[in-house]
Amino acid sequence: MSKNVLVLPGDGIGPEIVTEARKVLDLINDRFALDLEINEALVGGAAIDATGVPLPDATLEAARAADAILLGAVGGPQWDTNPDFQIRPEKGLLGIRSHLQLFGNLRPAILYPQLAHASTLKPEVVSGLDILIVRELTGGIYFGQPRGIREKEGGIREGFNTYVYDENEIRRIGRVAFEAARARDKRLCSVDKANVLEVTVLWREIMEELGKEYPDVELSHMYVDNAAMQLVRAPKQFDVVVTGNMFGDILSDAAAMLTGSIGMLPSASLDENGKGMYEPCHGSAPDIAGQGKANPLATILSVAMMLRYSLKAGEAADLIEAAVSTVLDQGLRTGDIMSEGMRQVSTAEMGDAVVAAL
Amino acid sequence: MSKNVLVLPGDGIGPEIVTEARKVLDLINDRFALDLEINEALVGGAAIDATGVPLPDATLEAARAADAILLGAVGGPQWDTNPDFQIRPEKGLLGIRSHLQLFGNLRPAILYPQLAHASTLKPEVVSGLDILIVRELTGGIYFGQPRGIREKEGGIREGFNTYVYDENEIRRIGRVAFEAARARDKRLCSVDKANVLEVTVLWREIMEELGKEYPDVELSHMYVDNAAMQLVRAPKQFDVVVTGNMFGDILSDAAAMLTGSIGMLPSASLDENGKGMYEPCHGSAPDIAGQGKANPLATILSVAMMLRYSLKAGEAADLIEAAVSTVLDQGLRTGDIMSEGMRQVSTAEMGDAVVAAL
Ligand SMILES: CC(C)[C@H](C(=O)O)[C@@H](O)C(=O)O
Ligand SMILES: CC(C)[C@H](C(=O)O)[C@@H](O)C(=O)O
Repeated sequence: MSKNVLVLPGDGIGPEIVTEARKVLDLINDRFALDLEINEALVGGAAIDATGVPLPDATLEAARAADAILLGAVGGPQWDTNPDFQIRPEKGLLGIRSHLQLFGNLRPAILYPQLAHASTLKPEVVSGLDILIVRELTGGIYFGQPRGIREKEGGIREGFNTYVYDENEIRRIGRVAFEAARARDKRLCSVDKANVLEVTVLWREIMEELGKEYPDVELSHMYVDNAAMQLVRAPKQFDVVVTGNMFGDILSDAAAMLTGSIGMLPSASLDENGKGMYEPCHGSAPDIAGQGKANPLATILSVAMMLRYSLKAGEAADLIEAAVSTVLDQGLRTGDIMSEGMRQVSTAEMGDAVVAAL
Repeated sequence: MSKNVLVLPGDGIGPEIVTEARKVLDLINDRFALDLEINEALVGGAAIDATGVPLPDATLEAARAADAILLGAVGGPQWDTNPDFQIRPEKGLLGIRSHLQLFGNLRPAILYPQLAHASTLKPEVVSGLDILIVRELTGGIYFGQPRGIREKEGGIREGFNTYVYDENEIRRIGRVAFEAARARDKRLCSVDKANVLEVTVLWREIMEELGKEYPDVELSHMYVDNAAMQLVRAPKQFDVVVTGNMFGDILSDAAAMLTGSIGMLPSASLDENGKGMYEPCHGSAPDIAGQGKANPLATILSVAMMLRYSLKAGEAADLIEAAVSTVLDQGLRTGDIMSEGMRQVSTAEMGDAVVAAL
């Protein structure tokens, strides 16, 4: 049965990097006779401009019908001032995550040996870094109700959001994290703020309870402020980290930046059945959009994750990852990871080099 | 009129570091004829053990009566398992902050040139680092109602907290931050998550509005995930950062750790009138408590901040800061900041050295 991939280029550098990732995906589709049907749709600011909303019905339907989704990036300053909070590019992304219940967000932070110098941290602190952050993606304060801005007595306005998780939501992301840890170094650190927030008291309790089902995984707990410190102090102490939506947003970006090459990092957002959306960890970088400067490798590596997790083509995924390593060995670099003695290439040249290496 | 200082040693290394800070405070009190009346009281785990609650009425009354408060640290594993969430050491600290409306938390992250090597970041990234994080301390999700753990239909439990700020709360912390920026490099970065959370949409709006009153201060906005990244990538881009309680907790710890010597960093928590509580940025470090290993310098530097902000004795504050610099120049180091060629000293030896340098 033919499988269905939806490609969402999005905004800023999104279209450029997705173009390169498509080259790789098309080649793999042929080479491995995967029989993938590949469609494109609008999301984010591009969708607002064309249709007035960040997540048109047609896009949501196509996303529901797809076996996997490849996203570039969304957002840009021209849409940030819209007074209607529902008409923002981010709402397109959040809408897909939520409607498709893509709750399991895997964000690896890996230091490529070829790019070790790119980190702002000392080599001995980060060399060999390989952390996986598992972030809950469809709950927590991102989606909690009630929310909004209202007037109190006296006409004073207040803004409010609700940070909420139920046992089942915690349990299902916990399982994703324990399984991931089991397949790696068997250490899981759950990050919360259980000394202050009741919602994370429940989080910690459920993680403890799950831990009994995974006696082979060493479970620890850490407060989020300490986790932010420990990522800077000694990041290699972590194997898998599991946390909620908001803390995961912050910690995964910090962890990614430790590598110095966020342009290299892919991510996966999975539902209960392994269907997923795949996207680079970096954003839409409007400042360099359309200039051929963007690094397409995170998006290309997102294709590899997609093949591995949603399309059950692990061998093809391995090949892509090896090809990326090859182009780095060849000394090819986009501007963001450029260093002395290397050859600076454009977005398209980098994509072509990966295709050639394949 | 004689002024009144309340000392709260707290838990873990709290009593040890406060003992050294007291030596310094007593000396300054004599030398400058400040006529300070200095009292001690129980808070945190120590208060739970003695009275059953983390913030006894007597302590709260003494805190209300004081002109300034010096706190060591609270917390420890022996109190973490208390099923009653109100009987935790942290509740003592949070109670004082809230009852006294100490909303303005100043957390400097400064790299001491003598300790430049202690950072895990490359010297060129952090040398000369001098950031001030202004954290709102009595509102936001730390204190928002409703909160708790409840049962939904079907007996499923859910935990929930409320992230809430009203205009006035935002405006008063905004003013603290703008004033601080005005007295420094005149750049203020407000950190929010206004692309997702309505409460921070209001935050951003009020900061913009305030910015008009401070045309000499350059105001910028940054999403919290990006701020966590930028602290790792290029921390020297920041002068003053202002943010809410939860984001401030996370970012200030990350910023402190950039310096590699969190044992050196003081903090102030001020009310509307300049009354304040002063404490080191680090925690109670139960693992090294009672061993004479703790670094008392952050607490001693907290005394300096107290003299400057609440006791209007800026000259005495300058002297203490100079004395701390002198002992570092002398090569004295506690274990946390020890490096080759320096002389490792105990908590008490470090305190005595500062006294001697004074
Ligand atoms: C664009 C934004 C809504 C999003 C988030 O906060 O989740 C992004 O920062 C991310 O991490 O994917
Ligand atoms: C101990 C804890 C409640 C406290 C906080 O989260 O505010 C601490 O981490 C701090 O930053 O002062």
